Amino acid sequence: MSTPISTDICIVGAGPVGLFAVFEAGLLKLRCHVVDALPQPGGQLSEIYPKKPIYDIPGFPEVLAGDLVDNLMKQIEPFHPTFTLGERVEKFEKLDDGSFKLYTTDGTEIQCKAVAIAGGLGSFEPRKPAVENLERFEGGKGVHYMVRDPEHFRDKRIVIAGGGDSALDWTNFLANVAADVTLVHRGTTFRGAADSAEKVQKLHEAGKIKLVLSSNVTHLHGDDQLEQVTITANAGDSNTVALDHFIPLFGLTPKLGPIGEWGLDIEDDAVKVNTLDYSTSLPGVFAIGDINTYPGKLKLILCGFHEAALMCQGAFKYIFPDKKYTLKYTTVNGAPSL
Amino acid sequence: MSTPISTDICIVGAGPVGLFAVFEAGLLKLRCHVVDALPQPGGQLSEIYPKKPIYDIPGFPEVLAGDLVDNLMKQIEPFHPTFTLGERVEKFEKLDDGSFKLYTTDGTEIQCKAVAIAGGLGSFEPRKPAVENLERFEGGKGVHYMVRDPEHFRDKRIVIAGGGDSALDWTNFLANVAADVTLVHRGTTFRGAADSAEKVQKLHEAGKIKLVLSSNVTHLHGDDQLEQVTITANAGDSNTVALDHFIPLFGLTPKLGPIGEWGLDIEDDAVKVNTLDYSTSLPGVFAIGDINTYPGKLKLILCGFHEAALMCQGAFKYIFPDKKYTLKYTTVNGAPSL
Repeated sequence: MSTPISTDICIVGAGPVGLFAVFEAGLLKLRCHVVDALPQPGGQLSEIYPKKPIYDIPGFPEVLAGDLVDNLMKQIEPFHPTFTLGERVEKFEKLDDGSFKLYTTDGTEIQCKAVAIAGGLGSFEPRKPAVENLERFEGGKGVHYMVRDPEHFRDKRIVIAGGGDSALDWTNFLANVAADVTLVHRGTTFRGAADSAEKVQKLHEAGKIKLVLSSNVTHLHGDDQLEQVTITANAGDSNTVALDHFIPLFGLTPKLGPIGEWGLDIEDDAVKVNTLDYSTSLPGVFAIGDINTYPGKLKLILCGFHEAALMCQGAFKYIFPDKKYTLKYTTVNGAPSL
Repeated sequence: MSTPISTDICIVGAGPVGLFAVFEAGLLKLRCHVVDALPQPGGQLSEIYPKKPIYDIPGFPEVLAGDLVDNLMKQIEPFHPTFTLGERVEKFEKLDDGSFKLYTTDGTEIQCKAVAIAGGLGSFEPRKPAVENLERFEGGKGVHYMVRDPEHFRDKRIVIAGGGDSALDWTNFLANVAADVTLVHRGTTFRGAADSAEKVQKLHEAGKIKLVLSSNVTHLHGDDQLEQVTITANAGDSNTVALDHFIPLFGLTPKLGPIGEWGLDIEDDAVKVNTLDYSTSLPGVFAIGDINTYPGKLKLILCGFHEAALMCQGAFKYIFPDKKYTLKYTTVNGAPSL
């Protein structure tokens, strides 16, 4: 295990609200370390819709989600935040002196004086299809809910299920990698990009992949490893095929995840906070953005920005109960660096 | 008097927060009319520091105040807000059906179903110098705190006091209008633009104005109308001169103004609100931005944006107590127009 990271505020979640919290903390001369399970900052904005325009960020008639993230990263640069990306905070410990220790899935240790949860809608978990025996073949036995490394599927026989962008994109990509690709879709039209659907159609016509429409994968067969799947048409007839890997791609669904186990007051899968400073039921732990709830809560990025500003005041008071800080406007002097 | 203006929400104050409220109201299909005493939208940002960069608007590492206003105006365009600019809301009336009538200083009548006060730091009132008898000659009797119409001073004898841009600019301008201009300044250097100070100096050297430095106007004399002022040098000697008008220009200072008389709960010159929806003590009247106060309040533009979003939810419920509205995210579909 490496040397622990030490900081003032550990921000759990690198989405837009977590990033802006670095800015507000910086104005109060508080250092931040940001942790996110995703491999890049920006949360959903980078992971799910970087090229989609957003219309409700104040001052931007239109901005691409990815550009907003880039702007926020530039805005917080003067405060030199540090990041642990691609690791999920798993363990959480409050020490007697009121400070905290957090540990990630990869064993990174973060020591901090306050914790700001900016976890968005929580961690995203794959939406699983209703298929018999599915769980039995998870964990390296043939069922995969995402494609982490395409090379894993080189020269293998794979079946992909789904009708959205992920299913289409990976079908197109893996057609050149795997020995044999079958795409099973319950409908006849795709929800994904027209261009990707057209590519899939052409690969099918060229005999490079198999396309099975109006059908579902209904059964998995095998002993220790997945060996066969049964594909059943909506009309009723079924067909069992041999394969190495089954990749159901039905999107991701948000889950509160390990934060649900930290002993905080939770309501409807969200962390209850006090709007004075967005503090949780555990002193020193704050929650901002989509992950929190309070009377009147709106899940808007712009609301998370406000919550981040007030949270930093509360964190400052928690860290320095005897110190007084007067908020300085940044109109004239610019953002001071640490 | 012209036909009354009729709208859903009357927004009192066209600063950044008032403007963004139009956007959030528009998403809920509520029409807005915006009133401001200043002749252009943007509040302080346009009036006081349009060319100053701001650093704490989320997503903008740096933005000129005037550009932020332009962006907000563009962002609310799809909702076709209407404006009454250059008029101050003076009278306020709540009708039995829960709706409101507002009247401006110029007699414009606005009928609305809810009122959102977004008055910033309030209206700006002139900073008055400590001069004996000053109030006695206000209201058309010789003392003026601003120059509304330069023609009022044509061929008159005037004394201007002050050392900033207003004092310098009006001295230069009125030199060609008034019969006789004296500029009295307590110091020897000017706070205003060097270029304007140089022009004043040149007019003085050319004998077109009188410049009295290191001095203050200390006494006003006259019966019904102002007739003379006494100018006292810092060194002690004084001099009494005949005049028609005295124009002290010492800048503007924010005041809550007429809103203080609307019967709302007020604390420290700010309107008390409930953070659920930023409603005031009077149902149907909301207050957002720098003019409101609540536990944890920070006077930041970004906080006003959040307040505007939640306020619109509250206004919607006040206007349509029986209707349900599900907030739509604007990521995919864009901002719908009314």
